[in-house]
Amino acid sequence: MEIKTYLDEQKTLVENALARYMIQSGEAFADHIETLRYSLFAGGKRVRPILCLASARMVSGSADIDASTLPIACALEYIHTYSLIHDDLPAMDDDDLRRGKPTSHTVYGEAAAILAGDSLHCFAFDLLSHPDSSRIPANDRLEIISVVSRAAGPLGMVGGQYLDVVNEGREISYELLRTIHRSKTGMLITASVMAGGIAAGASMEQRDRLSEYGNAIGLAFQIIDDILNVESTTEQLGKAAGSDAKRGKSTYPALFGIEKAKKMADEAVAEALRALETFSETAEPLRGLARYIIERKK
Amino acid sequence: MEIKTYLDEQKTLVENALARYMIQSGEAFADHIETLRYSLFAGGKRVRPILCLASARMVSGSADIDASTLPIACALEYIHTYSLIHDDLPAMDDDDLRRGKPTSHTVYGEAAAILAGDSLHCFAFDLLSHPDSSRIPANDRLEIISVVSRAAGPLGMVGGQYLDVVNEGREISYELLRTIHRSKTGMLITASVMAGGIAAGASMEQRDRLSEYGNAIGLAFQIIDDILNVESTTEQLGKAAGSDAKRGKSTYPALFGIEKAKKMADEAVAEALRALETFSETAEPLRGLARYIIERKK
Repeated sequence: MEIKTYLDEQKTLVENALARYMIQSGEAFADHIETLRYSLFAGGKRVRPILCLASARMVSGSADIDASTLPIACALEYIHTYSLIHDDLPAMDDDDLRRGKPTSHTVYGEAAAILAGDSLHCFAFDLLSHPDSSRIPANDRLEIISVVSRAAGPLGMVGGQYLDVVNEGREISYELLRTIHRSKTGMLITASVMAGGIAAGASMEQRDRLSEYGNAIGLAFQIIDDILNVESTTEQLGKAAGSDAKRGKSTYPALFGIEKAKKMADEAVAEALRALETFSETAEPLRGLARYIIERKK
Repeated sequence: MEIKTYLDEQKTLVENALARYMIQSGEAFADHIETLRYSLFAGGKRVRPILCLASARMVSGSADIDASTLPIACALEYIHTYSLIHDDLPAMDDDDLRRGKPTSHTVYGEAAAILAGDSLHCFAFDLLSHPDSSRIPANDRLEIISVVSRAAGPLGMVGGQYLDVVNEGREISYELLRTIHRSKTGMLITASVMAGGIAAGASMEQRDRLSEYGNAIGLAFQIIDDILNVESTTEQLGKAAGSDAKRGKSTYPALFGIEKAKKMADEAVAEALRALETFSETAEPLRGLARYIIERKK
Protein backbone atom coordinates (compact mmCIF):
# COMPACT_ATOMS: atom_id res chain seq x y z
CA MET A 1 0.00 0.00 0.00
CA GLU A 2 1.12 3.54 -0.75
CA ILE A 3 2.19 5.30 2.43
CA LYS A 4 -0.12 8.20 1.55
CA THR A 5 -3.16 5.89 1.38
CA TYR A 6 -2.08 4.16 4.57
CA LEU A 7 -1.73 7.47 6.42
CA ASP A 8 -5.13 8.67 5.21
CA GLU A 9 -6.78 5.46 6.38
CA GLN A 10 -5.08 5.58 9.75
CA LYS A 11 -5.91 9.24 10.20
CA THR A 12 -9.60 8.48 9.66
CA LEU A 13 -9.40 5.62 12.16
CA VAL A 14 -7.80 7.92 14.75
CA GLU A 15 -10.20 10.79 14.15
CA ASN A 16 -13.22 8.53 14.51
CA ALA A 17 -11.80 7.32 17.82
CA LEU A 18 -11.06 10.89 18.93
CA ALA A 19 -14.70 11.74 18.25
CA ARG A 20 -15.91 8.63 20.04
CA TYR A 21 -13.82 9.31 23.14
CA MET A 22 -14.67 13.02 23.18
CA ILE A 23 -15.89 14.17 26.59
CA GLN A 24 -19.66 14.23 26.84
CA SER A 25 -21.08 16.82 29.15
CA GLY A 26 -24.24 18.56 30.18
CA GLU A 27 -24.89 22.18 29.43
CA ALA A 28 -22.73 23.72 32.15
CA PHE A 29 -19.42 22.66 30.60
CA ALA A 30 -20.44 22.79 26.93
CA ASP A 31 -18.52 26.00 26.12
CA HIS A 32 -15.35 24.69 27.74
CA ILE A 33 -15.60 21.35 25.92
CA GLU A 34 -16.06 23.28 22.68
CA THR A 35 -12.61 24.88 23.18
CA LEU A 36 -11.08 21.41 23.50
CA ARG A 37 -12.89 20.17 20.42
CA TYR A 38 -11.75 23.18 18.40
CA SER A 39 -8.05 22.39 18.80
CA LEU A 40 -8.39 18.62 18.76
CA PHE A 41 -10.20 18.65 15.42
CA ALA A 42 -8.22 21.46 13.78
CA GLY A 43 -6.44 19.00 11.52
CA GLY A 44 -3.03 17.59 12.27
CA LYS A 45 -1.19 14.58 10.92
CA ARG A 46 -1.97 12.34 13.95
CA VAL A 47 1.60 11.01 13.77
CA ARG A 48 1.78 9.94 17.42
CA PRO A 49 -1.41 7.87 17.52
CA ILE A 50 -0.58 6.32 14.15
CA LEU A 51 2.87 5.33 15.43
CA CYS A 52 1.33 3.83 18.56
CA LEU A 53 -1.20 1.75 16.63
CA ALA A 54 1.38 0.60 14.06
CA SER A 55 3.81 -0.42 16.77
CA ALA A 56 1.15 -2.43 18.64
CA ARG A 57 0.10 -4.23 15.47
CA MET A 58 3.69 -4.99 14.52
CA VAL A 59 4.39 -6.61 17.89
CA SER A 60 1.07 -8.46 18.19
CA GLY A 61 0.94 -9.40 14.52
CA SER A 62 -2.70 -8.38 14.23
CA ALA A 63 -4.99 -5.34 14.05
CA ASP A 64 -7.23 -6.96 16.67
CA ILE A 65 -5.22 -5.04 19.21
CA ASP A 66 -6.64 -1.72 17.91
CA ALA A 67 -9.67 -1.91 20.21
CA SER A 68 -7.35 -1.88 23.24
CA THR A 69 -4.79 0.60 21.91
CA LEU A 70 -7.08 3.28 20.48
CA PRO A 71 -7.69 5.04 23.84
CA ILE A 72 -3.93 5.11 24.35
CA ALA A 73 -3.33 6.39 20.82
CA CYS A 74 -5.92 9.14 21.38
CA ALA A 75 -4.31 10.09 24.71
CA LEU A 76 -1.06 10.80 22.86
CA GLU A 77 -2.87 13.16 20.49
CA TYR A 78 -4.52 14.90 23.45
CA ILE A 79 -1.12 15.52 24.99
CA HIS A 80 0.35 16.72 21.71
CA THR A 81 -2.61 19.07 21.12
CA TYR A 82 -2.45 20.55 24.62
CA SER A 83 1.26 21.24 24.12
CA LEU A 84 0.56 23.11 20.88
CA ILE A 85 -2.09 25.29 22.55
CA HIS A 86 0.28 26.25 25.36
CA ASP A 87 3.27 26.71 23.02
CA ASP A 88 1.23 29.12 20.89
CA LEU A 89 0.28 31.38 23.84
CA PRO A 90 1.39 35.04 23.75
CA ALA A 91 3.71 34.42 26.72
CA MET A 92 5.33 31.57 24.79
CA ASP A 93 5.78 31.49 20.98
CA ASP A 94 2.89 33.93 20.41
CA ASP A 95 1.59 32.26 17.25
CA ASP A 96 -1.69 33.22 15.60
CA LEU A 97 -1.88 30.32 13.21
CA ARG A 98 -1.72 26.57 13.75
CA ARG A 99 -2.70 23.80 11.37
CA GLY A 100 -3.98 26.57 9.09
CA LYS A 101 -6.47 27.89 11.63
CA PRO A 102 -6.40 30.69 14.22
CA THR A 103 -4.83 29.47 17.47
CA SER A 104 -6.94 28.77 20.55
CA HIS A 105 -6.10 31.99 22.42
CA THR A 106 -6.84 34.05 19.30
CA VAL A 107 -10.34 32.60 19.20
CA TYR A 108 -11.21 32.12 22.88
CA GLY A 109 -8.78 34.35 24.76
CA GLU A 110 -5.79 33.42 26.86
CA ALA A 111 -7.54 32.15 29.97
CA ALA A 112 -9.77 29.77 28.01
CA ALA A 113 -6.79 28.59 25.94
CA ILE A 114 -4.66 27.80 29.00
CA LEU A 115 -7.58 25.86 30.47
CA ALA A 116 -8.30 24.04 27.19
CA GLY A 117 -4.70 22.83 27.28
CA ASP A 118 -4.98 21.82 30.93
CA SER A 119 -8.16 19.84 30.28
CA LEU A 120 -6.75 18.03 27.25
CA HIS A 121 -3.63 17.22 29.27
CA CYS A 122 -5.62 15.81 32.16
CA PHE A 123 -8.12 13.94 30.02
CA ALA A 124 -5.23 12.12 28.34
CA PHE A 125 -4.70 10.27 31.60
CA ASP A 126 -8.38 9.50 31.79
CA LEU A 127 -7.98 7.83 28.39
CA LEU A 128 -4.83 6.02 29.53
CA SER A 129 -6.88 4.44 32.32
CA HIS A 130 -9.90 3.81 30.08
CA PRO A 131 -11.80 0.50 30.48
CA ASP A 132 -11.55 -0.14 26.71
CA SER A 133 -7.90 -1.04 27.34
CA SER A 134 -8.77 -3.58 30.02
CA ARG A 135 -7.53 -6.51 27.95
CA ILE A 136 -4.00 -5.16 28.35
CA PRO A 137 -2.54 -6.44 31.65
CA ALA A 138 -2.98 -3.75 34.32
CA ASN A 139 0.73 -3.65 35.14
CA ASP A 140 1.56 -2.96 31.50
CA ARG A 141 -1.02 -0.18 31.45
CA LEU A 142 0.63 1.39 34.48
CA GLU A 143 3.95 1.18 32.70
CA ILE A 144 2.48 2.93 29.67
CA ILE A 145 1.25 5.73 31.96
CA SER A 146 4.71 5.97 33.46
CA VAL A 147 6.44 6.05 30.05
CA VAL A 148 4.04 8.68 28.69
CA SER A 149 4.14 10.91 31.77
CA ARG A 150 7.94 10.85 31.78
CA ALA A 151 8.10 11.70 28.09
CA ALA A 152 5.65 14.59 28.48
CA GLY A 153 6.88 15.98 31.81
CA PRO A 154 9.62 18.12 33.35
CA LEU A 155 12.50 16.10 31.88
CA GLY A 156 10.63 15.57 28.61
CA MET A 157 8.28 17.67 26.53
CA VAL A 158 7.61 20.47 29.03
CA GLY A 159 11.25 20.69 30.11
CA GLY A 160 12.24 20.88 26.44
CA GLN A 161 9.80 23.69 25.80
CA TYR A 162 11.21 25.54 28.82
CA LEU A 163 14.74 25.24 27.43
CA ASP A 164 13.51 26.29 23.99
CA VAL A 165 11.81 29.42 25.36
CA VAL A 166 14.64 30.57 27.64
CA ASN A 167 17.26 30.07 24.92
CA GLU A 168 15.40 31.99 22.24
CA GLY A 169 17.72 34.44 20.50
CA ARG A 170 20.81 32.88 22.09
CA GLU A 171 23.44 30.89 20.28
CA ILE A 172 23.46 27.44 21.81
CA SER A 173 25.73 24.43 21.57
CA TYR A 174 24.88 21.42 19.44
CA GLU A 175 24.66 19.40 22.65
CA LEU A 176 21.96 21.69 24.05
CA LEU A 177 20.12 21.71 20.72
CA ARG A 178 19.97 17.92 20.84
CA THR A 179 18.76 17.97 24.44
CA ILE A 180 16.02 20.45 23.52
CA HIS A 181 14.87 18.47 20.49
CA ARG A 182 15.05 15.15 22.22
CA SER A 183 13.06 16.31 25.23
CA LYS A 184 10.61 18.60 23.45
CA THR A 185 9.68 16.31 20.55
CA GLY A 186 11.68 13.11 20.53
CA MET A 187 10.64 11.61 23.83
CA LEU A 188 6.88 11.73 23.16
CA ILE A 189 7.43 10.21 19.71
CA THR A 190 9.48 7.43 21.28
CA ALA A 191 6.83 7.04 24.00
CA SER A 192 4.15 6.66 21.30
CA VAL A 193 6.05 3.76 19.74
CA MET A 194 6.85 2.26 23.15
CA ALA A 195 3.27 2.57 24.41
CA GLY A 196 2.01 0.55 21.44
CA GLY A 197 4.71 -2.04 21.95
CA ILE A 198 4.08 -2.41 25.68
CA ALA A 199 0.32 -2.68 25.03
CA ALA A 200 1.05 -5.61 22.71
CA GLY A 201 3.33 -7.32 25.24
CA ALA A 202 6.69 -6.51 23.61
CA SER A 203 9.71 -8.34 25.03
CA MET A 204 12.58 -6.37 26.57
CA GLU A 205 14.62 -6.94 23.40
CA GLN A 206 11.74 -5.65 21.27
CA ARG A 207 11.30 -2.63 23.53
CA ASP A 208 14.96 -1.74 23.04
CA ARG A 209 14.54 -1.85 19.24
CA LEU A 210 11.34 0.22 19.45
CA SER A 211 13.12 2.76 21.59
CA GLU A 212 15.98 3.03 19.06
CA TYR A 213 13.49 3.38 16.25
CA GLY A 214 11.54 6.07 18.14
CA ASN A 215 14.65 8.06 19.01
CA ALA A 216 15.87 7.97 15.43
CA ILE A 217 12.60 9.06 13.82
CA GLY A 218 12.11 11.68 16.54
CA LEU A 219 15.44 13.20 15.54
CA ALA A 220 14.65 13.00 11.83
CA PHE A 221 11.24 14.53 12.45
CA GLN A 222 12.71 17.53 14.24
CA ILE A 223 15.46 18.15 11.68
CA ILE A 224 12.87 18.11 8.89
CA ASP A 225 10.64 20.43 10.93
CA ASP A 226 13.52 22.89 11.14
CA ILE A 227 14.19 22.57 7.40
CA LEU A 228 10.52 23.03 6.48
CA ASN A 229 10.43 26.17 8.63
CA VAL A 230 13.13 27.58 6.30
CA GLU A 231 12.06 26.17 2.95
CA SER A 232 8.26 26.13 3.05
CA THR A 233 5.62 28.81 2.91
CA THR A 234 3.15 29.60 5.67
CA GLU A 235 0.38 28.35 3.42
CA GLN A 236 2.04 24.97 2.97
CA LEU A 237 2.80 24.56 6.69
CA GLY A 238 -0.44 25.90 8.14
CA LYS A 239 1.73 27.76 10.64
CA ALA A 240 4.18 30.65 10.40
CA ALA A 241 7.10 29.78 8.10
CA GLY A 242 10.46 31.40 8.73
CA SER A 243 9.55 31.94 12.38
CA ASP A 244 12.65 30.17 13.72
CA ALA A 245 15.06 32.54 11.99
CA LYS A 246 12.97 35.56 13.01
CA ARG A 247 13.19 34.48 16.64
CA GLY A 248 16.89 33.68 16.39
CA LYS A 249 16.24 30.04 17.29
CA SER A 250 19.11 27.63 17.02
CA THR A 251 18.12 24.93 14.56
CA TYR A 252 19.80 22.20 12.51
CA PRO A 253 19.88 24.31 9.32
CA ALA A 254 21.20 27.28 11.30
CA LEU A 255 23.97 25.20 12.88
CA PHE A 256 24.87 22.94 9.94
CA GLY A 257 23.37 24.44 6.80
CA ILE A 258 20.48 22.92 4.83
CA GLU A 259 22.44 20.26 2.94
CA LYS A 260 24.22 18.82 5.96
CA ALA A 261 20.96 18.93 7.95
CA LYS A 262 19.18 16.94 5.23
CA LYS A 263 21.97 14.38 5.29
CA MET A 264 21.63 14.06 9.07
CA ALA A 265 17.90 13.42 8.69
CA ASP A 266 18.62 10.74 6.08
CA GLU A 267 21.08 9.08 8.43
CA ALA A 268 18.57 9.11 11.27
CA VAL A 269 15.97 7.43 9.07
CA ALA A 270 18.52 4.78 8.04
CA GLU A 271 19.16 4.15 11.73
CA ALA A 272 15.42 3.81 12.35
CA LEU A 273 15.17 1.23 9.55
CA ARG A 274 18.11 -0.72 11.01
CA ALA A 275 16.35 -0.89 14.38
CA LEU A 276 13.43 -2.65 12.67
CA GLU A 277 15.59 -5.29 10.95
CA THR A 278 14.71 -8.04 13.43
CA PHE A 279 11.01 -7.55 12.78
CA SER A 280 9.26 -9.29 9.89
CA GLU A 281 7.13 -7.75 7.17
CA THR A 282 4.67 -6.60 9.89
CA ALA A 283 7.18 -3.75 10.37
CA GLU A 284 6.38 -2.36 6.91
CA PRO A 285 4.07 0.43 8.20
CA LEU A 286 6.72 1.65 10.69
CA ARG A 287 9.31 1.53 7.88
CA GLY A 288 7.01 3.55 5.66
CA LEU A 289 6.41 6.06 8.44
CA ALA A 290 10.16 6.53 8.91
CA ARG A 291 10.64 7.20 5.18
CA TYR A 292 7.61 9.47 5.09
CA ILE A 293 9.12 11.74 7.72
CA ILE A 294 11.84 12.96 5.37
CA GLU A 295 9.54 13.23 2.38
CA ARG A 296 6.73 15.19 4.06
CA LYS A 297 5.99 18.74 2.98
CA LYS A 298 4.36 20.03 6.20
CA MET B 1 -4.43 14.02 69.93
CA GLU B 2 -5.10 17.69 69.26
CA ILE B 3 -6.04 18.20 65.61
CA LYS B 4 -3.38 20.94 65.39
CA THR B 5 -0.62 18.55 66.50
CA TYR B 6 -1.96 15.88 64.14
CA LEU B 7 -1.99 18.27 61.19
CA ASP B 8 1.56 19.45 61.94
CA GLU B 9 2.80 15.85 62.11
CA GLN B 10 1.05 14.89 58.90
CA LYS B 11 2.27 17.99 57.13
CA THR B 12 5.86 17.07 58.00
CA LEU B 13 5.29 13.54 56.74
CA VAL B 14 3.89 14.85 53.46
CA GLU B 15 6.61 17.44 52.98
CA ASN B 16 9.35 14.89 53.56
CA ALA B 17 7.73 12.69 50.92
CA LEU B 18 7.38 15.63 48.53
CA ALA B 19 11.10 16.26 48.91
CA ARG B 20 11.92 12.57 48.47
CA TYR B 21 9.85 12.27 45.30
CA MET B 22 11.11 15.56 43.86
CA ILE B 23 12.37 15.20 40.30
CA GLN B 24 16.12 14.73 40.13
CA SER B 25 17.78 16.08 37.04
CA GLY B 26 21.09 16.93 35.47
CA GLU B 27 22.17 20.48 34.85
CA ALA B 28 20.13 21.11 31.68
CA PHE B 29 16.76 21.09 33.44
CA ALA B 30 17.86 22.49 36.81
CA ASP B 31 16.34 25.96 36.32
CA HIS B 32 13.00 24.51 35.25
CA ILE B 33 12.91 22.08 38.19
CA GLU B 34 13.65 25.03 40.47
CA THR B 35 10.41 26.70 39.32
CA LEU B 36 8.49 23.57 40.31
CA ARG B 37 10.20 23.38 43.66
CA TYR B 38 9.47 27.04 44.38
CA SER B 39 5.70 26.59 44.22
CA LEU B 40 5.62 23.11 45.70
CA PHE B 41 7.48 24.20 48.82
CA ALA B 42 5.87 27.62 49.23
CA GLY B 43 3.88 26.38 52.23
CA GLY B 44 0.30 25.23 52.01
CA LYS B 45 -1.83 23.17 54.35
CA ARG B 46 -1.37 19.87 52.40
CA VAL B 47 -5.07 19.13 52.99
CA ARG B 48 -5.47 16.79 50.00
CA PRO B 49 -2.52 14.48 50.76
CA ILE B 50 -3.44 14.42 54.45
CA LEU B 51 -7.02 13.42 53.55
CA CYS B 52 -5.72 10.70 51.26
CA LEU B 53 -3.41 9.23 53.90
CA ALA B 54 -6.04 9.43 56.65
CA SER B 55 -8.62 7.73 54.46
CA ALA B 56 -6.25 4.89 53.55
CA ARG B 57 -5.34 4.32 57.20
CA MET B 58 -8.96 4.38 58.28
CA VAL B 59 -9.93 1.70 55.77
CA SER B 60 -6.84 -0.48 56.25
CA GLY B 61 -6.72 0.02 60.02
CA SER B 62 -2.98 0.65 59.99
CA ALA B 63 -0.38 3.25 59.06
CA ASP B 64 1.61 0.53 57.29
CA ILE B 65 -0.22 1.55 54.17
CA ASP B 66 1.59 4.92 54.15
CA ALA B 67 4.52 3.55 52.16
CA SER B 68 2.16 2.68 49.29
CA THR B 69 -0.08 5.75 49.51
CA LEU B 70 2.54 8.50 49.89
CA PRO B 71 3.27 8.79 46.12
CA ILE B 72 -0.48 9.09 45.53
CA ALA B 73 -0.85 11.66 48.31
CA CYS B 74 2.02 13.68 46.81
CA ALA B 75 0.47 13.48 43.34
CA LEU B 76 -2.65 15.20 44.70
CA GLU B 77 -0.53 18.05 46.05
CA TYR B 78 1.24 18.35 42.68
CA ILE B 79 -2.11 18.73 40.94
CA HIS B 80 -3.36 21.24 43.49
CA THR B 81 -0.14 23.27 43.22
CA TYR B 82 -0.21 23.33 39.41
CA SER B 83 -3.80 24.57 39.52
CA LEU B 84 -2.82 27.43 41.84
CA ILE B 85 0.02 28.51 39.53
CA HIS B 86 -2.29 28.60 36.50
CA ASP B 87 -5.16 30.25 38.42
CA ASP B 88 -2.82 33.03 39.53
CA LEU B 89 -1.68 33.89 35.97
CA PRO B 90 -2.36 37.41 34.63
CA ALA B 91 -4.80 35.98 32.08
CA MET B 92 -6.69 34.28 34.90
CA ASP B 93 -7.06 35.70 38.45
CA ASP B 94 -3.91 37.83 38.14
CA ASP B 95 -2.73 37.33 41.71
CA ASP B 96 0.66 38.47 42.96
CA LEU B 97 0.58 36.67 46.27
CA ARG B 98 -0.01 33.04 47.17
CA ARG B 99 0.69 31.30 50.44
CA GLY B 100 2.33 34.56 51.53
CA LYS B 101 4.91 34.53 48.74
CA PRO B 102 5.10 36.13 45.29
CA THR B 103 3.32 33.96 42.71
CA SER B 104 5.27 31.93 40.16
CA HIS B 105 4.76 34.27 37.20
CA THR B 106 5.78 37.25 39.34
CA VAL B 107 9.11 35.57 40.05
CA TYR B 108 9.83 33.63 36.84
CA GLY B 109 7.64 35.26 34.21
CA GLU B 110 4.51 33.94 32.56
CA ALA B 111 6.04 31.39 30.19
CA ALA B 112 8.03 29.70 32.95
CA ALA B 113 4.99 29.72 35.25
CA ILE B 114 2.71 28.10 32.67
CA LEU B 115 5.35 25.43 32.11
CA ALA B 116 5.94 24.91 35.85
CA GLY B 117 2.23 24.17 36.13
CA ASP B 118 2.31 21.84 33.15
CA SER B 119 5.25 19.90 34.57
CA LEU B 120 3.72 19.53 38.02
CA HIS B 121 0.49 18.38 36.39
CA CYS B 122 2.25 15.77 34.30
CA PHE B 123 4.56 14.56 37.04
CA ALA B 124 1.52 13.87 39.21
CA PHE B 125 0.71 10.98 36.89
CA ASP B 126 4.29 9.79 37.08
CA LEU B 127 3.76 9.59 40.85
CA LEU B 128 0.40 7.85 40.42
CA SER B 129 2.21 5.12 38.48
CA HIS B 130 5.19 5.05 40.86
CA PRO B 131 6.69 1.65 41.78
CA ASP B 132 6.45 2.50 45.50
CA SER B 133 2.71 1.85 45.20
CA SER B 134 3.22 -1.59 43.68
CA ARG B 135 1.72 -3.38 46.70
CA ILE B 136 -1.64 -1.88 45.72
CA PRO B 137 -3.32 -4.14 43.12
CA ALA B 138 -2.64 -2.73 39.63
CA ASN B 139 -6.33 -2.51 38.76
CA ASP B 140 -7.00 -0.42 41.85
CA ARG B 141 -4.11 1.86 40.90
CA LEU B 142 -5.64 2.36 37.45
CA GLU B 143 -8.93 3.20 39.11
CA ILE B 144 -7.20 5.79 41.28
CA ILE B 145 -5.72 7.36 38.14
CA SER B 146 -9.17 7.40 36.58
CA VAL B 147 -10.80 8.97 39.66
CA VAL B 148 -8.08 11.62 39.99
CA SER B 149 -8.01 12.53 36.29
CA ARG B 150 -11.79 12.89 36.22
CA ALA B 151 -11.77 15.08 39.30
CA ALA B 152 -9.02 17.32 37.91
CA GLY B 153 -10.15 17.46 34.27
CA PRO B 154 -12.67 19.16 31.97
CA LEU B 155 -15.72 18.18 34.03
CA GLY B 156 -13.85 18.71 37.30
CA MET B 157 -11.24 21.17 38.49
CA VAL B 158 -10.31 22.72 35.13
CA GLY B 159 -13.93 22.92 33.96
CA GLY B 160 -14.81 24.60 37.26
CA GLN B 161 -12.05 27.15 36.86
CA TYR B 162 -13.29 27.86 33.32
CA LEU B 163 -16.82 28.52 34.64
CA ASP B 164 -15.40 30.64 37.44
CA VAL B 165 -13.39 32.80 35.05
CA VAL B 166 -16.12 33.32 32.44
CA ASN B 167 -18.72 34.18 35.08
CA GLU B 168 -16.60 36.76 36.88
CA GLY B 169 -18.58 39.93 37.49
CA ARG B 170 -21.87 38.23 36.56
CA GLU B 171 -24.66 37.39 38.96
CA ILE B 172 -25.10 33.64 38.82
CA SER B 173 -27.71 31.22 40.12
CA TYR B 174 -27.14 29.16 43.26
CA GLU B 175 -27.22 26.08 41.05
CA LEU B 176 -24.31 27.35 38.95
CA LEU B 177 -22.41 28.42 42.07
CA ARG B 178 -22.70 24.85 43.40
CA THR B 179 -21.56 23.43 40.06
CA ILE B 180 -18.53 25.73 40.04
CA HIS B 181 -17.56 24.94 43.61
CA ARG B 182 -18.14 21.24 43.28
CA SER B 183 -16.10 20.95 40.10
CA LYS B 184 -13.39 23.46 40.94
CA THR B 185 -12.66 22.35 44.50
CA GLY B 186 -15.01 19.64 45.69
CA MET B 187 -14.20 16.90 43.24
CA LEU B 188 -10.44 16.84 43.89
CA ILE B 189 -11.08 16.80 47.64
CA THR B 190 -13.47 13.88 47.20
CA ALA B 191 -10.93 12.21 44.89
CA SER B 192 -8.26 12.58 47.59
CA VAL B 193 -10.43 10.72 50.09
CA MET B 194 -11.47 8.13 47.48
CA ALA B 195 -7.91 7.53 46.29
CA GLY B 196 -6.81 6.66 49.81
CA GLY B 197 -9.80 4.39 50.27
CA ILE B 198 -9.31 2.57 46.98
CA ALA B 199 -5.60 2.14 47.77
CA ALA B 200 -6.60 0.42 51.00
CA GLY B 201 -9.11 -1.84 49.25
CA ALA B 202 -12.32 -0.12 50.38
CA SER B 203 -15.56 -2.00 49.68
CA MET B 204 -18.22 -0.44 47.45
CA GLU B 205 -20.24 0.44 50.55
CA GLN B 206 -17.20 2.12 52.11
CA ARG B 207 -16.47 3.99 48.89
CA ASP B 208 -19.99 5.41 48.92
CA ARG B 209 -19.49 6.68 52.48
CA LEU B 210 -16.09 8.16 51.57
CA SER B 211 -17.61 9.90 48.59
CA GLU B 212 -20.38 11.40 50.77
CA TYR B 213 -17.79 12.52 53.29
CA GLY B 214 -15.61 14.05 50.57
CA ASN B 215 -18.49 15.90 48.95
CA ALA B 216 -19.63 17.31 52.28
CA ILE B 217 -16.23 18.56 53.43
CA GLY B 218 -15.51 19.89 49.93
CA LEU B 219 -18.61 22.04 50.19
CA ALA B 220 -17.77 23.17 53.74
CA PHE B 221 -14.22 23.95 52.64
CA GLN B 222 -15.38 26.20 49.82
CA ILE B 223 -17.98 28.04 51.90
CA ILE B 224 -15.36 28.76 54.56
CA ASP B 225 -12.91 29.87 51.84
CA ASP B 226 -15.50 32.38 50.65
CA ILE B 227 -16.12 33.58 54.21
CA LEU B 228 -12.40 33.93 54.97
CA ASN B 229 -11.99 36.00 51.81
CA VAL B 230 -14.47 38.48 53.36
CA GLU B 231 -13.50 38.33 57.05
CA SER B 232 -9.72 37.81 57.05
CA THR B 233 -6.79 40.03 56.24
CA THR B 234 -4.32 39.45 53.42
CA GLU B 235 -1.66 38.84 56.06
CA GLN B 236 -3.66 36.06 57.71
CA LEU B 237 -4.56 34.40 54.40
CA GLY B 238 -1.21 34.70 52.62
CA LYS B 239 -3.20 35.73 49.55
CA ALA B 240 -5.30 38.75 48.65
CA ALA B 241 -8.25 39.16 51.03
CA GLY B 242 -11.44 40.79 49.76
CA SER B 243 -10.55 39.80 46.20
CA ASP B 244 -13.87 38.00 45.54
CA ALA B 245 -15.95 41.11 46.18
CA LYS B 246 -13.55 43.27 44.16
CA ARG B 247 -13.97 40.93 41.18
CA GLY B 248 -17.73 40.69 41.63
CA LYS B 249 -17.53 36.94 42.19
CA SER B 250 -20.65 35.15 43.28
CA THR B 251 -19.92 33.49 46.62
CA TYR B 252 -21.85 31.95 49.50
CA PRO B 253 -21.62 35.09 51.66
CA ALA B 254 -22.64 37.23 48.67
CA LEU B 255 -25.66 35.04 47.94
CA PHE B 256 -26.76 34.19 51.48
CA GLY B 257 -25.00 36.56 53.87
CA ILE B 258 -22.25 35.60 56.32
CA GLU B 259 -24.46 34.08 59.04
CA LYS B 260 -26.46 31.82 56.76
CA ALA B 261 -23.27 30.79 54.94
CA LYS B 262 -21.67 29.79 58.25
CA LYS B 263 -24.73 27.74 59.09
CA MET B 264 -24.52 25.98 55.74
CA ALA B 265 -20.87 25.10 56.41
CA ASP B 266 -21.83 23.71 59.83
CA GLU B 267 -24.52 21.57 58.22
CA ALA B 268 -22.10 20.24 55.63
CA VAL B 269 -19.65 19.23 58.36
CA ALA B 270 -22.46 17.48 60.25
CA GLU B 271 -23.25 15.57 57.06
CA ALA B 272 -19.58 14.61 56.70
CA LEU B 273 -19.57 13.26 60.27
CA ARG B 274 -22.73 11.26 59.61
CA ALA B 275 -21.08 9.62 56.57
CA LEU B 276 -18.35 8.31 58.88
CA GLU B 277 -20.74 6.78 61.44
CA THR B 278 -20.23 3.22 60.21
CA PHE B 279 -16.47 3.48 60.70
CA SER B 280 -14.89 2.78 64.05
CA GLU B 281 -12.54 4.98 66.04
CA THR B 282 -10.01 4.75 63.15
CA ALA B 283 -12.20 7.47 61.57
CA GLU B 284 -11.17 9.95 64.26
CA PRO B 285 -8.60 11.79 62.07
CA LEU B 286 -11.13 12.27 59.26
CA ARG B 287 -13.65 13.51 61.83
CA GLY B 288 -11.10 15.93 63.19
CA LEU B 289 -10.29 17.14 59.67
CA ALA B 290 -13.97 17.81 58.98
CA ARG B 291 -14.27 19.88 62.17
CA TYR B 292 -11.00 21.68 61.48
CA ILE B 293 -12.32 22.93 58.13
CA ILE B 294 -14.85 25.24 59.78
CA GLU B 295 -12.45 26.36 62.51
CA ARG B 296 -9.49 27.21 60.28
CA LYS B 297 -8.32 30.78 59.95
CA LYS B 298 -6.64 30.57 56.54
